[in-house]
Amino acid sequence: MTLTIWTYDWVPPPPRGHVRDIRLRWACEEVGLPYSIATVRFEDRTSPDHLARQPFAQVPALQDGEVTLFESGACLLHLADKSETLMPRDPVGKAQTLEWVISGLNSIEMVSVPWWVIGLSNPPENPLEGWLASRLSRLETVLSQRDHLAADRFTVADLLMADILRVKKLRAALDPYPALQAYTDRITARPAFLKAHQDQMDHFAAADAARAK
Amino acid sequence: MTLTIWTYDWVPPPPRGHVRDIRLRWACEEVGLPYSIATVRFEDRTSPDHLARQPFAQVPALQDGEVTLFESGACLLHLADKSETLMPRDPVGKAQTLEWVISGLNSIEMVSVPWWVIGLSNPPENPLEGWLASRLSRLETVLSQRDHLAADRFTVADLLMADILRVKKLRAALDPYPALQAYTDRITARPAFLKAHQDQMDHFAAADAARAK
Repeated sequence: MTLTIWTYDWVPPPPRGHVRDIRLRWACEEVGLPYSIATVRFEDRTSPDHLARQPFAQVPALQDGEVTLFESGACLLHLADKSETLMPRDPVGKAQTLEWVISGLNSIEMVSVPWWVIGLSNPPENPLEGWLASRLSRLETVLSQRDHLAADRFTVADLLMADILRVKKLRAALDPYPALQAYTDRITARPAFLKAHQDQMDHFAAADAARAK
Repeated sequence: MTLTIWTYDWVPPPPRGHVRDIRLRWACEEVGLPYSIATVRFEDRTSPDHLARQPFAQVPALQDGEVTLFESGACLLHLADKSETLMPRDPVGKAQTLEWVISGLNSIEMVSVPWWVIGLSNPPENPLEGWLASRLSRLETVLSQRDHLAADRFTVADLLMADILRVKKLRAALDPYPALQAYTDRITARPAFLKAHQDQMDHFAAADAARAK
């Protein structure tokens, strides 16, 4: 059964390379799972058809036979169930992977994404600055002591956390956290990430060309 | 194997009834899984022992034989693997439960928790107000059309989402969302929630008594 990853047909340049279908592309590339790309027109993201697929009018969504899922974190856990490459099968390694996937979503991104969103309007002071620093500092301690979050090897938890930390403004704010810098750079140097990133850039560049016709 | 839920020995009154061990207590009560409570002194939450258990100095954590987990969302998914009561076993129902658990953590709480945190300092304007409204509005549409998030019946996704929405300041802001109000009230009327809530209140009240000695 071929997997289908849903994303936008086109987005403006700033988010390119960061649209969250990249997390699913990357996971598939790590495992060697074949997949195809399906698209919703960026302008149609609040259409009933797309809201049926993604109730918050976002991407990605994943189709896997009769199963469809939205939320990149949910899609990653679904893909991780398919391959030990993404998540160990032993109970301890699996639990570690799960807790760090959820940490990425609910302890780091719950602060870093709103921090980033608030930063877009250039306020004199970002009210989430201190909270973000405390979370990153705790994560720095963890990643000063080991190379990977879970199970002493690369898992989908690293894929997600590195994708969270590499967001431009956040990556640029990592100076006080050398372990997080090294970790982000190391995980995003993986060939599967580079392939997924290039494929997403190419996808949106092709859309520019098609729209220019 | 008995489950052990880790929480604080004591917290000041405001968060009582909302400390996140309640999510795990509630899940265990739904299933009838026996569990015991273990505690870390509130003042020792940044101790090396507790950071080894929860690297962000929070609660809860869950011990299940050789497996230990932190992050309430991860603990809920771990518990859901034990019982169909919390998560259907068919692939479609399981995927729906998973996507809505992750939505609670990464689409709703990623906005509602920072909105709440920023609100603590009573700013003239909360920069996350509009974003929160757009997320709640999308969720209102979904829950105007059905009683449960996933699989046409109660799942751990409802447990989590109702626990997110019942936070006092958020519940008080739900006037524009009658379906969310009704949903939150209906899900938190479940006997398993009421038992978990009372047990948490009693736990902290007992700690007051012990500390007063």
